[in-house]
Amino acid sequence: MKELLMSDDIDHLIRTALREDIGTGDITTASTVSPDAVIAGHYVAKEDGIVCGLDIVRRVFEALSDDVEYQPIMHDGDPVKRGDEIAKVSGNAVAILSGERVGLNILQHLSGIATYTRRLVDTVKGTNVRITETRKTTPGLRVLEKYAVRIGGGSSHRFGLSDGILIKDNHIVAAGGITAAVKSARLRAPHTLKIEIETETLDQVREAIAAGADIIMLDNMDCPTMVEAIKIIDGRAVTEASGNMGSRDLLEVAKTGVDVISIGALTHSVKALDISLKFTSLK
Amino acid sequence: MKELLMSDDIDHLIRTALREDIGTGDITTASTVSPDAVIAGHYVAKEDGIVCGLDIVRRVFEALSDDVEYQPIMHDGDPVKRGDEIAKVSGNAVAILSGERVGLNILQHLSGIATYTRRLVDTVKGTNVRITETRKTTPGLRVLEKYAVRIGGGSSHRFGLSDGILIKDNHIVAAGGITAAVKSARLRAPHTLKIEIETETLDQVREAIAAGADIIMLDNMDCPTMVEAIKIIDGRAVTEASGNMGSRDLLEVAKTGVDVISIGALTHSVKALDISLKFTSLK
Amino acid sequence: MKELLMSDDIDHLIRTALREDIGTGDITTASTVSPDAVIAGHYVAKEDGIVCGLDIVRRVFEALSDDVEYQPIMHDGDPVKRGDEIAKVSGNAVAILSGERVGLNILQHLSGIATYTRRLVDTVKGTNVRITETRKTTPGLRVLEKYAVRIGGGSSHRFGLSDGILIKDNHIVAAGGITAAVKSARLRAPHTLKIEIETETLDQVREAIAAGADIIMLDNMDCPTMVEAIKIIDGRAVTEASGNMGSRDLLEVAKTGVDVISIGALTHSVKALDISLKFTSLK
Amino acid sequence: MKELLMSDDIDHLIRTALREDIGTGDITTASTVSPDAVIAGHYVAKEDGIVCGLDIVRRVFEALSDDVEYQPIMHDGDPVKRGDEIAKVSGNAVAILSGERVGLNILQHLSGIATYTRRLVDTVKGTNVRITETRKTTPGLRVLEKYAVRIGGGSSHRFGLSDGILIKDNHIVAAGGITAAVKSARLRAPHTLKIEIETETLDQVREAIAAGADIIMLDNMDCPTMVEAIKIIDGRAVTEASGNMGSRDLLEVAKTGVDVISIGALTHSVKALDISLKFTSLK
Amino acid sequence: MKELLMSDDIDHLIRTALREDIGTGDITTASTVSPDAVIAGHYVAKEDGIVCGLDIVRRVFEALSDDVEYQPIMHDGDPVKRGDEIAKVSGNAVAILSGERVGLNILQHLSGIATYTRRLVDTVKGTNVRITETRKTTPGLRVLEKYAVRIGGGSSHRFGLSDGILIKDNHIVAAGGITAAVKSARLRAPHTLKIEIETETLDQVREAIAAGADIIMLDNMDCPTMVEAIKIIDGRAVTEASGNMGSRDLLEVAKTGVDVISIGALTHSVKALDISLKFTSLK
Amino acid sequence: MKELLMSDDIDHLIRTALREDIGTGDITTASTVSPDAVIAGHYVAKEDGIVCGLDIVRRVFEALSDDVEYQPIMHDGDPVKRGDEIAKVSGNAVAILSGERVGLNILQHLSGIATYTRRLVDTVKGTNVRITETRKTTPGLRVLEKYAVRIGGGSSHRFGLSDGILIKDNHIVAAGGITAAVKSARLRAPHTLKIEIETETLDQVREAIAAGADIIMLDNMDCPTMVEAIKIIDGRAVTEASGNMGSRDLLEVAKTGVDVISIGALTHSVKALDISLKFTSLK
Repeated sequence: MKELLMSDDIDHLIRTALREDIGTGDITTASTVSPDAVIAGHYVAKEDGIVCGLDIVRRVFEALSDDVEYQPIMHDGDPVKRGDEIAKVSGNAVAILSGERVGLNILQHLSGIATYTRRLVDTVKGTNVRITETRKTTPGLRVLEKYAVRIGGGSSHRFGLSDGILIKDNHIVAAGGITAAVKSARLRAPHTLKIEIETETLDQVREAIAAGADIIMLDNMDCPTMVEAIKIIDGRAVTEASGNMGSRDLLEVAKTGVDVISIGALTHSVKALDISLKFTSLK
Repeated sequence: MKELLMSDDIDHLIRTALREDIGTGDITTASTVSPDAVIAGHYVAKEDGIVCGLDIVRRVFEALSDDVEYQPIMHDGDPVKRGDEIAKVSGNAVAILSGERVGLNILQHLSGIATYTRRLVDTVKGTNVRITETRKTTPGLRVLEKYAVRIGGGSSHRFGLSDGILIKDNHIVAAGGITAAVKSARLRAPHTLKIEIETETLDQVREAIAAGADIIMLDNMDCPTMVEAIKIIDGRAVTEASGNMGSRDLLEVAKTGVDVISIGALTHSVKALDISLKFTSLK
Repeated sequence: MKELLMSDDIDHLIRTALREDIGTGDITTASTVSPDAVIAGHYVAKEDGIVCGLDIVRRVFEALSDDVEYQPIMHDGDPVKRGDEIAKVSGNAVAILSGERVGLNILQHLSGIATYTRRLVDTVKGTNVRITETRKTTPGLRVLEKYAVRIGGGSSHRFGLSDGILIKDNHIVAAGGITAAVKSARLRAPHTLKIEIETETLDQVREAIAAGADIIMLDNMDCPTMVEAIKIIDGRAVTEASGNMGSRDLLEVAKTGVDVISIGALTHSVKALDISLKFTSLK
Repeated sequence: MKELLMSDDIDHLIRTALREDIGTGDITTASTVSPDAVIAGHYVAKEDGIVCGLDIVRRVFEALSDDVEYQPIMHDGDPVKRGDEIAKVSGNAVAILSGERVGLNILQHLSGIATYTRRLVDTVKGTNVRITETRKTTPGLRVLEKYAVRIGGGSSHRFGLSDGILIKDNHIVAAGGITAAVKSARLRAPHTLKIEIETETLDQVREAIAAGADIIMLDNMDCPTMVEAIKIIDGRAVTEASGNMGSRDLLEVAKTGVDVISIGALTHSVKALDISLKFTSLK
Repeated sequence: MKELLMSDDIDHLIRTALREDIGTGDITTASTVSPDAVIAGHYVAKEDGIVCGLDIVRRVFEALSDDVEYQPIMHDGDPVKRGDEIAKVSGNAVAILSGERVGLNILQHLSGIATYTRRLVDTVKGTNVRITETRKTTPGLRVLEKYAVRIGGGSSHRFGLSDGILIKDNHIVAAGGITAAVKSARLRAPHTLKIEIETETLDQVREAIAAGADIIMLDNMDCPTMVEAIKIIDGRAVTEASGNMGSRDLLEVAKTGVDVISIGALTHSVKALDISLKFTSLK
Repeated sequence: MKELLMSDDIDHLIRTALREDIGTGDITTASTVSPDAVIAGHYVAKEDGIVCGLDIVRRVFEALSDDVEYQPIMHDGDPVKRGDEIAKVSGNAVAILSGERVGLNILQHLSGIATYTRRLVDTVKGTNVRITETRKTTPGLRVLEKYAVRIGGGSSHRFGLSDGILIKDNHIVAAGGITAAVKSARLRAPHTLKIEIETETLDQVREAIAAGADIIMLDNMDCPTMVEAIKIIDGRAVTEASGNMGSRDLLEVAKTGVDVISIGALTHSVKALDISLKFTSLK
């Protein structure tokens, strides 16, 4: 979705990763492979999952050479089975061998997130709940990780601290209570942002709704309490379940009628999807 | 270990992460908390593990304000139990609330790696094997992730493509065989680097040792084959076991007598260690 | 308000401005003033207005030398009369003479904006309307210009395209009508943002309110039409008057009961406030 | 004129402005407009003036997409009447809608400067005087603002502190008088630069000319005094009138026979020229 | 050899050099040459030597304009005689005149290094010794200077401090002796790097070889001592002669049988090769 | 002289050089020296010359650590004899050993330039001629190299293409002759710059002086011709001798009465001054 300027950030990340890996040069390749050698290969899934990040791999090679042709066979979001061919690459061997690892590192990480997200989204199929990520992302990769969550079927929460208001317990204490905090935010923040507030008890829910909060986070509540909270809120605010949702029964949570479930584990505890680049020819 | 200039890279990463998260400003805090408010809290482990990255958290706050005091209670590498206090922080509430998430994201990720590494290192206790990471790291975090592996008790492999020679199958094909590849590398690479070569069969091992390789990677071999390979090599080269080692019985591998085991999962499939920042006062 | 990371942006702007002005060195000062010379002076208003940007001047000198003492006499937002002393500076003459112009350029520009904003805010005194700026800012100075508007008594609109949704006529056409556009935004955008939509007729207002828009922009409407629109909306959405508001009778607009008036001229047609630095001693 | 490397600076400014405005993405467009939608429109003058900055708009779109065609109808420096079409644009709707504001902000600002300059240049038509800007420019925009002055018919003063010598009162005091200051500059500065000195009285003019100054600034003098000064100088130095020239009768000043009039208001108090982008089709 | 990412560093260096030279614009060319003027010329050697850096010149022009055609006539490493044409250039006069100096500065410097290296390499022809540079390079130019050494027929030493281990006297003292230093490095450094140690006496050579050093530097030894040392080492380590080798009889040193001679003067005391750009047409 | 903003450039150069040398870390030091070890030493001249760059060495250590004390014993410009102590350093051994080479590389290079310049300046002692460098500098080091020339007793020419006008043969051809070129520059360039023009014959000198050039370059002329040229010019313009001046008899040139001699070899063919860092204690 958010595409334009982010390209810059992604290219910056790719260059950082290449610089990190290649340093002052790929000595092995430089000392064993002719600068004119040509190679071809396929990206192959070594386990089942959702593929994500195919375009990043293209950009990695583009950053290194004009003499690499990269052709995705699948699209981001496609389910893959072990053994499926995902993309093919051919061209200058030095560039491909030098960029191989960086491309794979990103592809496997994003595919891991998309795979995990899809699994959780499937769990709540049939309900109206949105699955979202949180701000518990890897430094420097938030744009890509949020993209992978969407590719997996999730939705986006605010990007960061500047495009959403989420009043937590300390903000509440600092402002002098829920009512005061909502009022203060209403007065001082741009009129274009909704005000979300974290609650842990039904009393807090009642105060938040009375204060005019637009979104109410139900933090670490058990399901019966959530059901109660949602009854109290009665459509006057969006509801969001949060707090260790990675280890909860998401379908049960979804069935409380909550609008959004936000899950930190989607991005902070990712298992890379196993993908490898198999070379088929070299000349 | 490698300390000096890396500070620059780490500060760059921290600024990237802060910029990513804070964007044009933490609106919630700015609109609910007084600029002069003061807060205090503790970092608390919510599960057992090895803590790593305590200094990073300090730098995050330093990047935001001169009015935050951060005091680690533990040291990187210390084992923590659920409920242990890891560090304490106090000072300007706006800075602490705005930087809290970025610090935690890095701390939890590195502690996750250190915890995982320590577990694997403990598995091979009593043998002489080194556990190392690979180049399968998160883009932009290699310095930190390799540090976390060392903190967990692991050793370092080459940093990237420019400070080590590792001849893989495609390099071998390109150079015209193992003997030619080693010879070519010997001729063209700096005399200060060892030459490592990947082997999958005992015949390859024999050719590699004859060619004068300094390190021989035993890739995806079962343990009896490794034992055989090590017998063939007979101390004339360092030996390294590799290939899905994250799902192998590491003690069995270690007992083959191999010198090094390199494990991609140490950095590509990390579960964050659960740590939270509990606030205790606000005024 | 939004303070923390923005410091980086402001420092970057200051360095850009200094580099632009000083280039490879202030030759005049270097060739006529001793490196150890000390100078002192006062910033003096040469016309009435609201002062804004006093801290920026401090940062300019900090970027150049540790041997400059800068002491604001007034605070941002204070009204000044012609002849009033605003701040004083003393210290290394080379640094002060080299940085003088850059500091003044920013100080005069921001004070110009604050002065203009205060004048407009005073015009609507007694009503509940908010005066806000738009995205019609000077490239690279948005953070500072929005700050000057707040200092002048204005409020902030969204910062840019990523922290607010404002559906304009082309978005409406592209989405297939007001109803479809609001629905599409609701579905695809983060749940944390309000949805604002631009309307030019009362029919559009009716459709927007029925579609569930959170904010309705009344674009280029005369006052009687606005009154009508606000009656139709009846508190179900925030209302914002827009379109050449810089040349409208703002009090009349405010009296329609609209919630927000957004004014491009606040930042795109600024007359610098005349301020000069008078030196009083040199040794 | 100065073209080559400045392109870098201009592209940097454009990227800064886009990043500032688009942030992490244009959410409105992303959530309401199809990525493949195509749009077309015209830039139309909404008041009379001189257009300037047409190439900048092209670069803005180029920075965002390869799928935008932008075609200026006028050239920088052309006079426009209210209603005139200035340029046309067509192509990818997402890119055009996301970049529209940044392009307009720069185009309107530069056209405002060119319009103002042209008006002042026309005032002194028939005399030989040069109208120049000063260093009172907007931080980060000096290159562009000086360009707009030239497009409006003005001439360039020194770019900044490193490519011209202008000895002001404090430099004079520091050096120990006009004669000493000119001598010191002559000795220590590169032999390739002229030496300009600020004077406020006829005695200072006499001393400056005796000291061998190449350019004499007549600062805040009334016209009869300037006439006298120019008689004293008698062609031995270039003369430059300065000091609140934005509010002086420029023709009267020009008729004193002065060579150059430098005017800060040309760049520090600019009224944007009203230009809008009218869309004509969308599919 | 090390090619890929280094391109970034080289482009950065070129842009730095252009920015340094062109500043805010080439005023002479801008004020005397039409923007559309076309020019053509040849790069001509004004003394004998080895040419190196031809591709850098191309990149300089590419950084400035798309309207310059640059065609090398020779290749890097070719010997040139006074009067030989090395390359030709034609196209936009403004770009060529503005970039001429920067391209020549780099071309002459690298050709100077290649010429010097070739001379020394020729001196030891017939022996098996490698001539290498050291870390005594010009700040920011190491990649290019090491390239020029290779072009001149030399070999590469480690790039810097992170891709090679070279234990000098202070490291030895700090570690508690040669044996301890080698052991400590073996334990703590990656297993992929060889360990080199500096020795000044035969006793140190004996201790180094016993400690298992992979490379032994013979520092400031006379030739008979080196012969003795090499006899002691007896093929168990690579040997490197070092210490003011720029003023030694290299053939005599080579005949000791040492493997490598490293020479700081190759890069720290370079005489530029005289090359000029002669223009042949202008229209 | 030009001090302020250049500090940024110098710090950037230092960081580039450190990054280039240290890469991902000084492995030797990290693996053999305790992080807390303390070391002390002296910088000692190993040949006679003029020392220059002492402050750069300080900045190198500052960039690496707060625990290094560096104390110059001499000042930039002081003559040194072989064996003289130039500066002393003590503190954290890791930082000192890691930064030693970068500091020395710059110190030796700048001292080499200052030494060479001083030698040439001494040659023309007793005349009034200025010795200046040219634009034939090392990429990225112009600021420092020009500083070293001044320290050696030379004067500065223009910094680059934007702060001086120097019309060469191609500009003359492009503009349609000397008279037209000077007129065009006079019209289009800022009135603050002198106009210099290159001449090779006495006829060109005559035309240049008639055209009103401010500086006349006498390019590749023999001394009698220069004498003649200077007679023709007769004080109406500054005169500058140029063209392979590095291999001319400078005193003879100076005695022609020329004002300035510019010499490319001062910066393009530098022999580093031999300086080493001798360590005296380590604990």
